[in-house]
Amino acid sequence: MGYAMASNLLKAGYEVMVWNRSPGKTDGLAAAGAKVAATPGEVACACDITLAMLSDPEACLEVATGPDGVASAISAGKGYVDVSTVDAQTAQVVAAAVRAKGAAFLEAPVSGSKGPAEQGQLIFLTAGDQQLFDAASPLLDVMGKASFFLGEVGAGANMKLVVNMIMGSMMASYAEGLSLAKQCGLRQADLIEVIKLGAIAAPMFALKGPPMTDGKYPPAFPLKHQQKDMRLALALGDATAQQLPLAAAANELYKKARAAGYSDADFSAVMEAVARRD
Amino acid sequence: MGYAMASNLLKAGYEVMVWNRSPGKTDGLAAAGAKVAATPGEVACACDITLAMLSDPEACLEVATGPDGVASAISAGKGYVDVSTVDAQTAQVVAAAVRAKGAAFLEAPVSGSKGPAEQGQLIFLTAGDQQLFDAASPLLDVMGKASFFLGEVGAGANMKLVVNMIMGSMMASYAEGLSLAKQCGLRQADLIEVIKLGAIAAPMFALKGPPMTDGKYPPAFPLKHQQKDMRLALALGDATAQQLPLAAAANELYKKARAAGYSDADFSAVMEAVARRD
Amino acid sequence: MGYAMASNLLKAGYEVMVWNRSPGKTDGLAAAGAKVAATPGEVACACDITLAMLSDPEACLEVATGPDGVASAISAGKGYVDVSTVDAQTAQVVAAAVRAKGAAFLEAPVSGSKGPAEQGQLIFLTAGDQQLFDAASPLLDVMGKASFFLGEVGAGANMKLVVNMIMGSMMASYAEGLSLAKQCGLRQADLIEVIKLGAIAAPMFALKGPPMTDGKYPPAFPLKHQQKDMRLALALGDATAQQLPLAAAANELYKKARAAGYSDADFSAVMEAVARRD
Amino acid sequence: MGYAMASNLLKAGYEVMVWNRSPGKTDGLAAAGAKVAATPGEVACACDITLAMLSDPEACLEVATGPDGVASAISAGKGYVDVSTVDAQTAQVVAAAVRAKGAAFLEAPVSGSKGPAEQGQLIFLTAGDQQLFDAASPLLDVMGKASFFLGEVGAGANMKLVVNMIMGSMMASYAEGLSLAKQCGLRQADLIEVIKLGAIAAPMFALKGPPMTDGKYPPAFPLKHQQKDMRLALALGDATAQQLPLAAAANELYKKARAAGYSDADFSAVMEAVARRD
Repeated sequence: MGYAMASNLLKAGYEVMVWNRSPGKTDGLAAAGAKVAATPGEVACACDITLAMLSDPEACLEVATGPDGVASAISAGKGYVDVSTVDAQTAQVVAAAVRAKGAAFLEAPVSGSKGPAEQGQLIFLTAGDQQLFDAASPLLDVMGKASFFLGEVGAGANMKLVVNMIMGSMMASYAEGLSLAKQCGLRQADLIEVIKLGAIAAPMFALKGPPMTDGKYPPAFPLKHQQKDMRLALALGDATAQQLPLAAAANELYKKARAAGYSDADFSAVMEAVARRD
Repeated sequence: MGYAMASNLLKAGYEVMVWNRSPGKTDGLAAAGAKVAATPGEVACACDITLAMLSDPEACLEVATGPDGVASAISAGKGYVDVSTVDAQTAQVVAAAVRAKGAAFLEAPVSGSKGPAEQGQLIFLTAGDQQLFDAASPLLDVMGKASFFLGEVGAGANMKLVVNMIMGSMMASYAEGLSLAKQCGLRQADLIEVIKLGAIAAPMFALKGPPMTDGKYPPAFPLKHQQKDMRLALALGDATAQQLPLAAAANELYKKARAAGYSDADFSAVMEAVARRD
Repeated sequence: MGYAMASNLLKAGYEVMVWNRSPGKTDGLAAAGAKVAATPGEVACACDITLAMLSDPEACLEVATGPDGVASAISAGKGYVDVSTVDAQTAQVVAAAVRAKGAAFLEAPVSGSKGPAEQGQLIFLTAGDQQLFDAASPLLDVMGKASFFLGEVGAGANMKLVVNMIMGSMMASYAEGLSLAKQCGLRQADLIEVIKLGAIAAPMFALKGPPMTDGKYPPAFPLKHQQKDMRLALALGDATAQQLPLAAAANELYKKARAAGYSDADFSAVMEAVARRD
Repeated sequence: MGYAMASNLLKAGYEVMVWNRSPGKTDGLAAAGAKVAATPGEVACACDITLAMLSDPEACLEVATGPDGVASAISAGKGYVDVSTVDAQTAQVVAAAVRAKGAAFLEAPVSGSKGPAEQGQLIFLTAGDQQLFDAASPLLDVMGKASFFLGEVGAGANMKLVVNMIMGSMMASYAEGLSLAKQCGLRQADLIEVIKLGAIAAPMFALKGPPMTDGKYPPAFPLKHQQKDMRLALALGDATAQQLPLAAAANELYKKARAAGYSDADFSAVMEAVARRD
């Protein structure tokens, strides 16, 4: 995804310097005009705004706070925008390291995967230093179709959890509806079509319904990650004493699906926890 | 709604005969070319296909099986299409009365309200005699944008229950998400916008979200009706031993909202059962 | 159970007249001094207080309101005590028939089975005419260890539902605890013993725990009856807008156990719905 | 509680050495024959078996691993028995420190409070080194009525969580029953009495029922601690993919009660989350 995002910035005429853990991965970008740095710190030293797209919290911490990392080289007046999806705690650690050098920080997890990244259709859920949001907005507009500034660092991660919590409950409820339809003698395909035309039509229902009725769950968003997000959203609810009875019930179904071996299947495999009759 | 449906049939060039419990209500249709009958039976005697749009099961039973009703006058080769929303049992009673006279029956509850009725954009969830569905389809196509033939009488009512069950769980889950967002310090308006752009975007969320955040629930679909539909869907689940843990959890929230006095508010008032902190 | 109850009355020195649908079943009681009647009406005509112990609502209605039944022969000043376990509606129909003749009525479902009946250790949950409760109390004291007068007809049936609802949730929760213990590497037998010694010790846990850990569920109270009582208790909650989220969650587990074929097993077979991992 | 336990050991004729953070608290024990040490390490150096009763994980870690602590002075052949109630992780840290010195460790959280401690009626849920359990059993028998050896360190803490999880669900279910009884027109006092006589009779129900019906919740086990134990039990269920739908539903009620201000009330105040109708 980082490749697609950098490509779009180059196409839009920006000067871009890139770094990747695996050196060969930047060749295409270099051919398209990007400078290639030897370390993350070199990028942070040379550029006004440094963007990072990394796979997990460990990688985020290493790139930001490790030797030759961003925090070792960044300075007052510059900004660091981390578009990786990580938990609020990791984002706060990175923010503290960057701000300690006088630089600004923006957490900016994206909604959307490879396709939207290539088409410049990502959604950025940002939080942190608002001036950096304002400065980075032209870049975000090149890479995405919408950007939100949500408040303090951690708000971006929390917004993703809230959205994914609703998504998880909706999917479990959809599985209940499909299962009940079948038990009542209705065709599941009819239910899918009826829903498409009404007030609860959602892209996810149209996309996932047909494979679910076939018992097929090719992993787009793995069930274990959905269940982890339910767990983390419930932990937010615990911290704030917010009751979440549907999310709690849905979480139990995702756990049941994990016990039945569907951790690595798509999260729509919660269908198996709902529909099984033995 | 019956007025709008009959108007569309007249505009499409069909010969239409109408009857209404309150005689004056047919004046506009008469002016537009409709014949006016004195009883439902007179319609059923004169027309190949008789359509009924009534407000509740009692009215359906009276028009179909009462004195001068449809069943008293209908005969072999004709068809009766009841587009009212009633329970499966009522539909089955009407079906038996009509079929006893050799006529065909189609249960055809609609999805959509006055606006879609006027614009010919209704959705018909039909079940019963498939030959009548085939014969009536040109009429349904004039009045609506889609028609489904779902199987045996009762299937139309059950399909509505399944859809409304999912809708009820989705609304309760949305209320959880909005409440958790607030407790985490996120703006509810941001959550509404983020959802609009993603995989779980549904017209209902976009429509109901803003008034919900203002604590406003002007009744479009009363909460007591949503709770009744949850109860009936759960009863279907009981009859078929289909577990429905999210629907069951959502139903308890709708009951809680009833206890707190929101029976006649919009079903989005389930927000009050979720968000209250005292 | 009726035999044991009549025996205890005879032993206590009461004059007893008996009737049974199967004539031979009263032989032992006749030998012990009971008069034998040819019809229920004959008992109601001869005795001040008529007691009935029947198996289901149909039998209750026939004995009370059928030809030669109790209501055909009972008269002002007499009383009818039905100790069968039936729903509130059936009890109300019987009450109306008996009261229409000027007689008094007491619904008195028992808690306890054959053993307690023989030992005079039953518990009577009565409701209806309090004067009849006062008059019948000496008889109830012979047959049982405790009697409650709960109010209007229907209160006895409702009390049983409330108790069975709690029982059903407790059993489901116990199954959760046993399952979690196993998954954590604890011995289920240890959990059973620890519980026996503390604040949540209940006879049911001590009795059912060991067979549950062996996957054995010999039917004492069939699962389908427990699930029916959960459903009826939830219907009471619906009628009164009382939220019951645990009962609702437990009911879904009993439904799941029904789907898996445990309807006729003991209700402790809800264990299978909780513990299964496929 | 430590005072009562040491007293019972002295009465039984054991040689006892004691230490307390607040020196004056050991005066009574000294008068009864105990030697008084200046540090925990002095006890561990002088005695074959050292017992600790502390209030929270921080105190446990300090006494075991801090300067002049148990681990600084204990040696091969001796044993350390920690009867405090702490989480599995804390117990494992203490175990590692003690075992590193060649000594044995037993985690032994107690069930029971001050009264049972004075009467020698505690229950010990032990885990760790079985030889130490065997050696310490005569002491445990003096102080308690039952001891369990449950397996690896952590098993004692987990057993307490499983028991408390069932207790929390039972209490929530009891609140549902009491609330439903009231809404149906039954007397809550009658329900309490009926339950006392049957299969689900538990000391907790008899003890807590009457104050609950009066809306009184004097804190014996604070609601926030019950909710914390539900959360930790659910986390165990998450780690093992064990579905726990009733515990999850109960947890949401305890959270609701926290939001309503009952954190420091007794856990029976979950009644307020269930019964409130506004």
